[in-house]
Amino acid sequence: MAQVLFGHGANILDADQHTDPVAQQFFQRIRVDLSELLTDKGTLERAIAEVAQRFGMTYRLYYAERVKRVALFVSKYEHCLYDLLLRHRGGELACHIPVIVSNHPDLAPVAREFGIEYVVIPKDPASQEAAEARELELLAEHNIDLVVLARYMRVLSAKFVSAWENRVINIHHSFLPAFVGQKPYHQAYERGVKLIGATAHYATAVLDQGPIIEQDVIRCSHKDSVEDLVRKGRDLEKVVLARAVRLHLDDRILVYDNKTVVFD
Amino acid sequence: MAQVLFGHGANILDADQHTDPVAQQFFQRIRVDLSELLTDKGTLERAIAEVAQRFGMTYRLYYAERVKRVALFVSKYEHCLYDLLLRHRGGELACHIPVIVSNHPDLAPVAREFGIEYVVIPKDPASQEAAEARELELLAEHNIDLVVLARYMRVLSAKFVSAWENRVINIHHSFLPAFVGQKPYHQAYERGVKLIGATAHYATAVLDQGPIIEQDVIRCSHKDSVEDLVRKGRDLEKVVLARAVRLHLDDRILVYDNKTVVFD
Amino acid sequence: MAQVLFGHGANILDADQHTDPVAQQFFQRIRVDLSELLTDKGTLERAIAEVAQRFGMTYRLYYAERVKRVALFVSKYEHCLYDLLLRHRGGELACHIPVIVSNHPDLAPVAREFGIEYVVIPKDPASQEAAEARELELLAEHNIDLVVLARYMRVLSAKFVSAWENRVINIHHSFLPAFVGQKPYHQAYERGVKLIGATAHYATAVLDQGPIIEQDVIRCSHKDSVEDLVRKGRDLEKVVLARAVRLHLDDRILVYDNKTVVFD
Amino acid sequence: MAQVLFGHGANILDADQHTDPVAQQFFQRIRVDLSELLTDKGTLERAIAEVAQRFGMTYRLYYAERVKRVALFVSKYEHCLYDLLLRHRGGELACHIPVIVSNHPDLAPVAREFGIEYVVIPKDPASQEAAEARELELLAEHNIDLVVLARYMRVLSAKFVSAWENRVINIHHSFLPAFVGQKPYHQAYERGVKLIGATAHYATAVLDQGPIIEQDVIRCSHKDSVEDLVRKGRDLEKVVLARAVRLHLDDRILVYDNKTVVFD
Repeated sequence: MAQVLFGHGANILDADQHTDPVAQQFFQRIRVDLSELLTDKGTLERAIAEVAQRFGMTYRLYYAERVKRVALFVSKYEHCLYDLLLRHRGGELACHIPVIVSNHPDLAPVAREFGIEYVVIPKDPASQEAAEARELELLAEHNIDLVVLARYMRVLSAKFVSAWENRVINIHHSFLPAFVGQKPYHQAYERGVKLIGATAHYATAVLDQGPIIEQDVIRCSHKDSVEDLVRKGRDLEKVVLARAVRLHLDDRILVYDNKTVVFD
Repeated sequence: MAQVLFGHGANILDADQHTDPVAQQFFQRIRVDLSELLTDKGTLERAIAEVAQRFGMTYRLYYAERVKRVALFVSKYEHCLYDLLLRHRGGELACHIPVIVSNHPDLAPVAREFGIEYVVIPKDPASQEAAEARELELLAEHNIDLVVLARYMRVLSAKFVSAWENRVINIHHSFLPAFVGQKPYHQAYERGVKLIGATAHYATAVLDQGPIIEQDVIRCSHKDSVEDLVRKGRDLEKVVLARAVRLHLDDRILVYDNKTVVFD
Repeated sequence: MAQVLFGHGANILDADQHTDPVAQQFFQRIRVDLSELLTDKGTLERAIAEVAQRFGMTYRLYYAERVKRVALFVSKYEHCLYDLLLRHRGGELACHIPVIVSNHPDLAPVAREFGIEYVVIPKDPASQEAAEARELELLAEHNIDLVVLARYMRVLSAKFVSAWENRVINIHHSFLPAFVGQKPYHQAYERGVKLIGATAHYATAVLDQGPIIEQDVIRCSHKDSVEDLVRKGRDLEKVVLARAVRLHLDDRILVYDNKTVVFD
Repeated sequence: MAQVLFGHGANILDADQHTDPVAQQFFQRIRVDLSELLTDKGTLERAIAEVAQRFGMTYRLYYAERVKRVALFVSKYEHCLYDLLLRHRGGELACHIPVIVSNHPDLAPVAREFGIEYVVIPKDPASQEAAEARELELLAEHNIDLVVLARYMRVLSAKFVSAWENRVINIHHSFLPAFVGQKPYHQAYERGVKLIGATAHYATAVLDQGPIIEQDVIRCSHKDSVEDLVRKGRDLEKVVLARAVRLHLDDRILVYDNKTVVFD
């Protein structure tokens, strides 16, 4: 592949690779500069496709000038939303954020402050299907590339996440696989752990079982009430989710076997 | 209680307390200097017992000059054993270590090097009961206060751990409650976590479910094979186990509701 | 002291103590519930003062119902400002924030969004004295208890910080005492460190030499440009500053010998 | 270069690269499998040299079957020495350790236990030059590739470290550049830091100023005496030094501008 790129005048800036000897798979991320391309993009793309086919490689091609479009899904907690929007405004996240979707009206003022459309789609078991149809429509309308569940408190259907495989990032407020499901801080308090964690992962059909992108922990003790864990955890959730989103936006994550290769 | 101690000339050096508002329990650790005791130990002990009874308090009394006696249980891995023995020799762990028990002969040379008796008690499902009887005998003979499972690869029976409640410390090579049971590093590898952990806890009748004393984690990535996780994990296991043993030897751990209060 | 409190019906909720054997000083923080006070506050205060004098103790008395008043000083960076304001709004910081002072107009919109007065006091070497006079006036007008320098890029005079001893918290973007002074991220880049840090401390007459309240670090590598360090460091600065402010607001910090005792 | 390797049948297993845009330098580490080499090593080496010269590249070539030979320098502290020897015995460090050099006889029993020659070379200001001459001789005799100062308490001369540039790894017990020089734990105690650190670096003519390979920190508080810092620090020193040695043995460290590129 390096030879193909070289032959077309595509200058390799970065190349990371990983071999999984167990799964017997080889992974590579190549970042190229096309400013001195000898042919045109179409020719290059055809050459890449040809090589990939010959060697049985799967590949994805991203152009950095095509800035990704992100939809944020939120419920009532503002901390992850604010964090992402402030990082975005500060230039940390290279993307457009045209729309925020919520099952509650509470965070509309935050969206307004940042000049972003805020769409309320209420969700209860009865309305789930219609609500998701509306959400999917919205994603199509806004030409969305990535959905970020920024403490969105509703579970997306298997149908939804399958259609958006590896394009929905969720933040779970525990160190997965510990404390799957509801109220992980309460579970952590009950178990008496000495560290709490947060996990960013791609959402899959099985709750909290998707490929893990990033995790981190913070120390706690018997002195911490559930409220203290919630407070400490907020700092983790923000940072871990933001790192995962940034890695995705930079096309640094490859997924296989329900795991991630993160080229950072 | 402070008044009783004061009244007998027992000088309070340290006092830590914790109130659990959920369990509605109050915990306190008081360290006193008896060098200017106005009465004698017996009188003081009776006064403490009287106050404790009057207010419905549970208490334990330890004399620092009574150095605790520790038995180490090991199998084939030497890293935790060496770590504890070197810390002990270096003065980090205030205890006597009169005996090392193992289900394998492999680590006898380490015991010899440190001049400690090494007793091999093989263990298979058939012999488990007789083996444990012998172990309990040994603990009695050596007047043991604390059993440390330093990567001991056999599960102690419910009967054993009940008799030694809160006096058997185990190191589990995962961030509990994630990856309970066998081969946690393999489980961690399969799940694709981005941090691995280690947990020191008191052994109870339910495997890996006892009160957690200490935990820590280290970062890993897709680049780490199971062997890499095992290697990185060893450093965690050593440090986390040593911290837990030290806390226990200093009488800094109170247990209730399958959780610990650690006064550090 | 415990006896005096007890005698007046002041119920001790928490008591932390620390003995510094080198400095030969004893420190204690006692939190009491006055709801069942047998006398009145004046009587209690006199009794405390009397005991303190008798035993040569220094003490400070805070009433929790007297919520502290905080002034934030900022320049052009918004991340710490936003972080503190959002935490305040979310109930993490028990204080009033009546005024934000800046040497630049840039962050006025943030202040407006949170409904807080924003006062621009430009500052250059020539105007420093007059500017500080105005600042001190402002603090007096607003009855301020604590000044937080949330990435304020001007050095306060020795006169100012002496008048506000242990009541001005600064965040320095390095792991002090490494990289004192200007541009610590550039210094860190030059030195090739593998971790960068942030330090919250009380401002004193000597730059970056005040008593350290809290510190934390994050891993970096040769891959990180100065801009990457700045970005990673922002997350540290926010968290470390917020923790320090929270500790101060809870009256958990005692200062002596240019060091802090933090009762957390 | 990739083409040259490919052309000779050298199969690229790993390739890491780094571009420093400030220093305008490009770094690459390539690991190749020579089992299907079409030519012989000599031919390959000449081809590599030719390409390197043509493009003005500096390069080093290591054969994995040529196991590195390491000399450990120690004084009286045993923790780093034991740690390295146990890791070596456990297969974590791919090297030979034929000799341990010390300015004191104290650790001879440790060397004996592991079957390694222990040479005492006393050192005081008067004898420094002769002592170093003897050390250099010893390194030559044993065909040493790497010197590890495992808490060696003597400063090597500028002449020595220049001759052994980037081949002497030292562990300094602070988070450099904080607390350069003598008694860093005492300095840390005096300054009242909330974290202590350890730094592994290549020794250079200027004390504690060499290229940093690895660093880590651990939390401390006002409760920690100097002795507590020393104890906590030992765990850091061991782990940080071992990581640095391992990285060096794997040829993962490139040095330039007094900084390191670490390809891990």
